[in-house]
Amino acid sequence: MIPFSLLEAVRGLDDWIVVSHEKPDGDTLGCGSAISAVLGSMGKRVCWIGRDPLPRLYSFLSESGIYSTAQPGEVRSSLGDGPVGWFFVDSSDITRAMDHLPRGPEDRVVNVDHHGDNGLFGDVNWVDPSFAATGEMLANLFKREGVRVSSPVATDLYVAMVTDTGFFRFSSVTPRTLETAAFLLSKGVDHSFVDDAINRSMDERILHLWGKALCRVRSAAGGAVLVSWLDQDDFVECGCDPSATEGLVNLIFSTPEGLMAALVTRSGGDLSRVSLRTRGGVSARAIAARFGGGGHERAAGFRLKESPEEGARMLLAELARDAVRLPSDR
Amino acid sequence: MIPFSLLEAVRGLDDWIVVSHEKPDGDTLGCGSAISAVLGSMGKRVCWIGRDPLPRLYSFLSESGIYSTAQPGEVRSSLGDGPVGWFFVDSSDITRAMDHLPRGPEDRVVNVDHHGDNGLFGDVNWVDPSFAATGEMLANLFKREGVRVSSPVATDLYVAMVTDTGFFRFSSVTPRTLETAAFLLSKGVDHSFVDDAINRSMDERILHLWGKALCRVRSAAGGAVLVSWLDQDDFVECGCDPSATEGLVNLIFSTPEGLMAALVTRSGGDLSRVSLRTRGGVSARAIAARFGGGGHERAAGFRLKESPEEGARMLLAELARDAVRLPSDR
Repeated sequence: MIPFSLLEAVRGLDDWIVVSHEKPDGDTLGCGSAISAVLGSMGKRVCWIGRDPLPRLYSFLSESGIYSTAQPGEVRSSLGDGPVGWFFVDSSDITRAMDHLPRGPEDRVVNVDHHGDNGLFGDVNWVDPSFAATGEMLANLFKREGVRVSSPVATDLYVAMVTDTGFFRFSSVTPRTLETAAFLLSKGVDHSFVDDAINRSMDERILHLWGKALCRVRSAAGGAVLVSWLDQDDFVECGCDPSATEGLVNLIFSTPEGLMAALVTRSGGDLSRVSLRTRGGVSARAIAARFGGGGHERAAGFRLKESPEEGARMLLAELARDAVRLPSDR
Repeated sequence: MIPFSLLEAVRGLDDWIVVSHEKPDGDTLGCGSAISAVLGSMGKRVCWIGRDPLPRLYSFLSESGIYSTAQPGEVRSSLGDGPVGWFFVDSSDITRAMDHLPRGPEDRVVNVDHHGDNGLFGDVNWVDPSFAATGEMLANLFKREGVRVSSPVATDLYVAMVTDTGFFRFSSVTPRTLETAAFLLSKGVDHSFVDDAINRSMDERILHLWGKALCRVRSAAGGAVLVSWLDQDDFVECGCDPSATEGLVNLIFSTPEGLMAALVTRSGGDLSRVSLRTRGGVSARAIAARFGGGGHERAAGFRLKESPEEGARMLLAELARDAVRLPSDR
């Protein structure tokens, strides 16, 4: 249910600071852009901030030009002493978005999110984990309230939805998700453009780096465990930065038998980084916790003191032991 | 518009032969399975045939157990002398499905397809290229006619839709496509299962083969052209057959600047095979035709007498010349 207090807050305040979370993804950025545009079209004064820069990939979002990493205190001061609305999108925890909230006495904090573990830090909280993306929530809000959804705003929300659902492939997708996406397409989204923008992020150097990692894939426990690695030299030789491995572990994990896949990398510093993916009831978070790391049920990360090559060998054996302990009816 | 004669034909005949096209894909198989199941649930006698075997990947379709590559003449004879309905799904041309139609004097041929160049070979033709998949057409037919769509039938049609739209990424997708998919999900499709079944077709050996090809990617004309190759030794060393390259050229093509991507392979015989992908107004078919091959506007193929390595070097130079001739406002 959309809380009435949310609509009341939006109607009642003229100045807004929209906040996207740190290490911003397509959902927090697509939503930030869309709500900034809609508040702007309602005649409100809008700033849109986040702790980290907007990745170049998302520069086509409609309001990317107003996004900034300015300090929240400065942004707040620039809006004067009157009441300001803070609109958080897709932030499960206020600390994921900003260290300290420099709020004025009459400010209102709006928190719209689809994460089940949301800390309910707002004056108004609309948190509903039955939605596959925060973008799906905003699209439904706009539709229900009769807000005009322009083609750029529809595109922003479509980006939020496809990035948070792996282009409608994740288990979080429901009939409502696809109906909402249909509604957005009907508003003029050029979905081929979005597909190209989101999915065509490789270059020759990244292809070479992925090639090295794929040649080194080793499996154990009848294919249940897949592990590969990349060392600092590989990044130097290919001319890639750490972001070049984005999505690589998912490709390694695309086997029918795979229950755990790990990519061990080092692109600087003494420690190796492990990206872990799991399925079939295996908890990536629990495994990562054993190594002092953390994350989600199916995707987690941790660090190792071993080199990537040694770490990969150690993990292959370790995860294979986990795999043989799994119930046979998996 | 769904032709009334289609409904009339379905109601009027008790014996049906459902026909999927050669080299069957997810759309012709998902539709073949779904219509077989629905005709069966209406109490009709149903055979489902195709010229080529059903790929193992699709063995989870609800009616895969009745699919056969039996000769149409034999199948027709087994149904006796009474009138039989032939239900072609997703076949633009009757010769793509069978060489000769051994029809009886009272038989009726139904042709349901979404290809714009369909030969309209049926007694009843429902051909509508505004649909992204033939599966989308059947789902809309069942919905409009109040046919009960069981969860297995919904799954068959969902498979048809996702395989023909690249999981809703192709430009052919419309709001109706997503609404139809939402309707199917609401009937109980386990879309995570389908995603896994369709997209998790790698294994350690295929990952190694892909790794070799990715390490050999070379680009020219500022990244507009991307070429790689695999020779017979690579297939032997990795223990892979030619089907292991399925999808590989698309990964090589996932760069923002890429206008042409080619993968040159040899897995047996004297000739090399080229898989070509293009975009941005470059015709893959026209390029393939220069080398005696053919295909579609954005995907085509041809053969070369050079080894894969030599062929890749030659193509890189040749395609780079094409690229510099392109209009600068592309």
